[in-house]
Amino acid sequence: MKKVGLNAMEQLGYYNGNYGSLEEMTVPMNDRVCYFGDGVYDATYSRHYKIFTLDEHVDRFYNSAGLLGMHLAQTKEELKAILNEMVGKMDTGENFVYWQATRGTGIRNHVYPEADVQPNLWIILRPVDVQPLSKKVKLITLEDTRFLHCNIKTLNLLPSCVASEKAKQAGADETIFHRGERVTECAHSNCHIIKDGVFITAPTDHLILPGIARAHLIKACKALNIPVDETAYTVADVFAADEVLISSAGSFGLAAESVDGKPVGGKAPELLAKLHKYLWDEFIAETA
Amino acid sequence: MKKVGLNAMEQLGYYNGNYGSLEEMTVPMNDRVCYFGDGVYDATYSRHYKIFTLDEHVDRFYNSAGLLGMHLAQTKEELKAILNEMVGKMDTGENFVYWQATRGTGIRNHVYPEADVQPNLWIILRPVDVQPLSKKVKLITLEDTRFLHCNIKTLNLLPSCVASEKAKQAGADETIFHRGERVTECAHSNCHIIKDGVFITAPTDHLILPGIARAHLIKACKALNIPVDETAYTVADVFAADEVLISSAGSFGLAAESVDGKPVGGKAPELLAKLHKYLWDEFIAETA
Repeated sequence: MKKVGLNAMEQLGYYNGNYGSLEEMTVPMNDRVCYFGDGVYDATYSRHYKIFTLDEHVDRFYNSAGLLGMHLAQTKEELKAILNEMVGKMDTGENFVYWQATRGTGIRNHVYPEADVQPNLWIILRPVDVQPLSKKVKLITLEDTRFLHCNIKTLNLLPSCVASEKAKQAGADETIFHRGERVTECAHSNCHIIKDGVFITAPTDHLILPGIARAHLIKACKALNIPVDETAYTVADVFAADEVLISSAGSFGLAAESVDGKPVGGKAPELLAKLHKYLWDEFIAETA
Repeated sequence: MKKVGLNAMEQLGYYNGNYGSLEEMTVPMNDRVCYFGDGVYDATYSRHYKIFTLDEHVDRFYNSAGLLGMHLAQTKEELKAILNEMVGKMDTGENFVYWQATRGTGIRNHVYPEADVQPNLWIILRPVDVQPLSKKVKLITLEDTRFLHCNIKTLNLLPSCVASEKAKQAGADETIFHRGERVTECAHSNCHIIKDGVFITAPTDHLILPGIARAHLIKACKALNIPVDETAYTVADVFAADEVLISSAGSFGLAAESVDGKPVGGKAPELLAKLHKYLWDEFIAETA
C-alpha cells in the first residue's frame, strides 16, 4: 500500500490502496462509475475508532455486489481489515465510514469488462458526531419513480438526489416516497409508523433497501415487547399515525414532527423514548 | 485551455478544459458522478471531421440537463465549438463523439451543491467507422425495471448495463425492454416495427428516450410516403412484425433477424432498403 503523508487528517479518500486528503484524490476517467454509475456502496459510523455494525454492513455490501454479478477483489475479512486500518489513520474516532466498489476500469461499454478486470475499491472517511435522537425531522412526500431494484444499494442515485433537493427547498430533512398510495421508503432512509402500540414498516421487497437500522429497530421492538407488523401502509396511514420514524445508519430512528408541512406524530412519546434508549444504549455498548 | 502534446491520438479524454490520452486522464474523486451518477450525456458520430446532427444532440443534452435542474457552464454554441475543436485534434475524422456534464464537485451530499459550483464537462472521442446498415442484429427481451425518467439521458445506466450483459451472454446484440406486454425501447436504442407497410414506434413519453435516430427514421418515412403510427405495441407484435428495427446514433435503423432465438422480420425487404438508403444518403450528404 502506497503511503502518503497524512497529518491532521480532515477527510480521507482511498482508491485501490492509494489514500490521501479526499479533496486531492483523483480516479481514472475510465472507471465505469463515471459513465454508468456501475457500482454498489455501503456506509455506517465509527465511535472510539470502532465501526458500528460492520459485519452487517459488509454482508449487505457483498449481497448488493452479488445481485449485480460483481466479484469483489477482497474477501469480507480483508475489506473489514482495510476499513479498520483506514479509520485508525483518522485524528478522531468518530467518523462517517463510507465505501463503494465499481465494476472496474475500461473503455466505455455497457457490457461488463472481461473477467480479469477487477472492481475498484473506494473509501471515504469524514469526522462526524452522531446526532442526538431527540431531534425531530420534517418530511415531504413524493411519488416514487425509482427503478425496481431498490433492494440493491447501487450508485444510481439520481432520483434520491432530486428528492433530497426538493426536501431542502421545502425546508425539510427527508422525502417519503410512495408508489400510488403505498409508502415505500425515504430518499436515503427507511420509513416506519407507530399506531395503537404497533410498529409498522414496509416489507423488504424490491421496493425498499433492507436497512440495517431498520433491522435493529425491529430487534428493539421485539426486546421491548412492542408488536411489529411488516405490512405495506399508505400515505394516509402516515398522517393518522401516533409516531412517524425514519431510520438510517447514524439516524437510528428519528421521529418526524411534520409531513408536507402538516403536524404528525407526537402521540406515543413514551414508546418512542423506550425505543430510542434501547438503540442508543446498543450503539454505546457496541462502540465502547 | 491547457495544451498537452498529442500525436497519433488513439482516444481522447477531456475534462473541464484539460485533455489528453483517455487512459491517462483522471478526475476528482469528489465529482458527483462518482457517488450518485449525477449527470447527463449525449453522443453521436463524426465523419470527415463533421459531427452528424450536432445541433439536435446538443439541444437534447441541454433539455436533459434542464429537466434535472442542471445549469451548464457553457452556452450551446460554446459547447459545439469545444466539441468541434476536440474532433479537430483527432488523427481521423471518423469518431464516436461522446460528452457528459456532471453536477459539480464537492463533499458527498444528496442535495445539490451551492449555485456557484459549476457542472463539469467531459468529452470522449474514439476513432470508429459507422457499421454498414446491411448488418442484421439478434435481440433478446427483458422486463423493463428502469426508473420512470427514461426520457432524460442520465448517467444512471445500471439496468442498461445488466441488460447488455444478458444480451451478450445470450449471443445477442441488444435487449428489447417491455413493461408487462408493452414494448418500451432497447437498452441503448429505440425499437420499432414495420407491419403491413406501416412504421410503428412507441410514443415519446417518460418510458423512452426521444431518439434522434428515431426522429430521422420518422422523417425518412414521411419523405418516402410510409405511414407512421406512434402507438405503443406489444412483444407479440414484435414476433408478428414484417420487420423489427433498432435505432441509435451510428446504427441509424438496423433490422433484427431474431428475438429470443426465434426468427423475426425479413418480410418487407424493399421497404427496409428504401429507408436504409434514405438514412445513409442523408448521413453522407450532411458529413460530406
